[in-house]
Amino acid sequence: MGNINIKLLASELKLSVSTISKALMDSHEISPETKQRVLDLAKKLNYVPNPYARSLRGRKSKTIAVVLPEVADSFFSLAINGIESIAQEKGYHVLIYLTHESLTKEEAILSDFQSGRVDGILISVSRETLASRHIIEASARGIPVVFFDRACEDMETASITTNDFESCLKATRHLIETGCREIAYLSISNSLGISNKRMEGYKQALADNGIKFSSENIVHCTNDIGNDTAFLTSLMKKKNRPDGIIASVEKLTTPIYLVCRELNLSIPEDVKVISFSNLAAAMILNPSLTTVTQPAFEMGKRAASVLFQALEKKSYNLKHEKIILPSELIVRSSTSAMPIKK
Amino acid sequence: MGNINIKLLASELKLSVSTISKALMDSHEISPETKQRVLDLAKKLNYVPNPYARSLRGRKSKTIAVVLPEVADSFFSLAINGIESIAQEKGYHVLIYLTHESLTKEEAILSDFQSGRVDGILISVSRETLASRHIIEASARGIPVVFFDRACEDMETASITTNDFESCLKATRHLIETGCREIAYLSISNSLGISNKRMEGYKQALADNGIKFSSENIVHCTNDIGNDTAFLTSLMKKKNRPDGIIASVEKLTTPIYLVCRELNLSIPEDVKVISFSNLAAAMILNPSLTTVTQPAFEMGKRAASVLFQALEKKSYNLKHEKIILPSELIVRSSTSAMPIKK
Repeated sequence: MGNINIKLLASELKLSVSTISKALMDSHEISPETKQRVLDLAKKLNYVPNPYARSLRGRKSKTIAVVLPEVADSFFSLAINGIESIAQEKGYHVLIYLTHESLTKEEAILSDFQSGRVDGILISVSRETLASRHIIEASARGIPVVFFDRACEDMETASITTNDFESCLKATRHLIETGCREIAYLSISNSLGISNKRMEGYKQALADNGIKFSSENIVHCTNDIGNDTAFLTSLMKKKNRPDGIIASVEKLTTPIYLVCRELNLSIPEDVKVISFSNLAAAMILNPSLTTVTQPAFEMGKRAASVLFQALEKKSYNLKHEKIILPSELIVRSSTSAMPIKK
Repeated sequence: MGNINIKLLASELKLSVSTISKALMDSHEISPETKQRVLDLAKKLNYVPNPYARSLRGRKSKTIAVVLPEVADSFFSLAINGIESIAQEKGYHVLIYLTHESLTKEEAILSDFQSGRVDGILISVSRETLASRHIIEASARGIPVVFFDRACEDMETASITTNDFESCLKATRHLIETGCREIAYLSISNSLGISNKRMEGYKQALADNGIKFSSENIVHCTNDIGNDTAFLTSLMKKKNRPDGIIASVEKLTTPIYLVCRELNLSIPEDVKVISFSNLAAAMILNPSLTTVTQPAFEMGKRAASVLFQALEKKSYNLKHEKIILPSELIVRSSTSAMPIKK
């Protein structure tokens, strides 16, 4: 009966359907007098609004927060576009907050979500975030929370992630099949859940193929390009230098290529390289880059959709939503099967 | 006297300096009772708060809006980081709104900035934005506006831009010096101020070198990768195909490289390429890409600084702030001086 009733209200009050709809949604474009007339008649006619319109009236901010480490990364920028596509459809604002991988900043941001500022939170945690106390507190204030990509496992709520274990297992297996035996895994955190899951996939592939795991081949990068370049340089200068590299972060790609160039190491002859990346330019790099590509836009869309279900229906149980979307291994020249030079 | 007085208030009331400061800033963390005690004593002692604290008390949202076309572009993502760095220092939230290059969306976003939601606006207009009526309306509601990168010239307010004319003149001259005579200019708009300024620089360089301008060499791309690839393919197949390309948008880089590869055209032997781009990976492309690199982070920082001056001091005249930061031409292999094959 939803639309029919709005139409009825409109014709009774000689107003447009859009005006009625806006009045019911408490839009600032409609005068308080008109809103009152609409609400009075709605009450008189026993008009039952749909849950979404009701939710909008009850929640004034019409804003969701997206808390994420950074935007200078193609995964996050594509995920934002996915989130935006849903929010715009629902008439919501999107507040984007950057933690720059700092737990302190993340805590400060979350503590500021007092009632009213935002209706819901989509979060991809910083690499320093070990526990979700600060996120649970926001949720306890009645603000639904949905994790995307980087989740905290100690908090029971919806998460939209990708198959980190399997995709890194597959990537490592691919390197082994192309001849690599000394494979380095580059991470940006030794605590972040997704980084650990990826590393577990890496270890599993080594074990499956009888290759001994060496902790020397695990490098935890920083968020500083200078430091990372120094780490990579010493990694590629060591006696048993890697003949394969898996970078779990897109932004390590450029330093890896530059360090190899500096040390006169050829990709893929001397070392084969795979990166988790959504970079469009991956296919025009020198050599073109084999990537594990996450469904970034789709992950953002799904995360926003789940959040809006919770906003529209209070009884909706977020705990049951554990959505895992698969990533894709896209093989290009950086892992082409030419024999490793020894 | 600012700090001394806050300390005095703190010691008189046996509260911490931080509590006094938060109470004066009307923080939600402080109870109404405590706020009242602080304000009463401040009045009694004739405490004069600094302009920034006064501004914060008067303006409740502590939020600035950043309105921009997209985030999947390294210029904008770096500019956001610059804006964030200042906003965080000032204790402000940053609301990021994406127009996806649509004037309709931009108008809807601006019309929603009723009093209270945001205190100030940083905007880089969409490619469809010819006039700034909707922006002037927001400004008339008392919200200061600062343009960054893409400004509207019919509105008198601060702008932080780069030297679009000169940098494109320089880029075009560089192509001519390396032997190009048939130079295409790729734009994403025939109306956007910065795109036109860049094109004027391009035309000037042609004129300076006695090269006839041909409108056939101007291509207005869309925001659709499929369309753009089709445009580029027909451009590179025409009888007098370009021997040089200047792309005024970063995201055209990948389609240009792929179309050249598809048509068996070698960069830089058959065609030399320059792109306006802040992509870190420019140096590891095949071949490495000559770029006009804008000072993205610095532009974001300066834009935010100017906006905060206006927020902190009502009498501050934004009209006088026309800041132009220079871009840099970074020459790499995509324009190396090997003779053009004919």
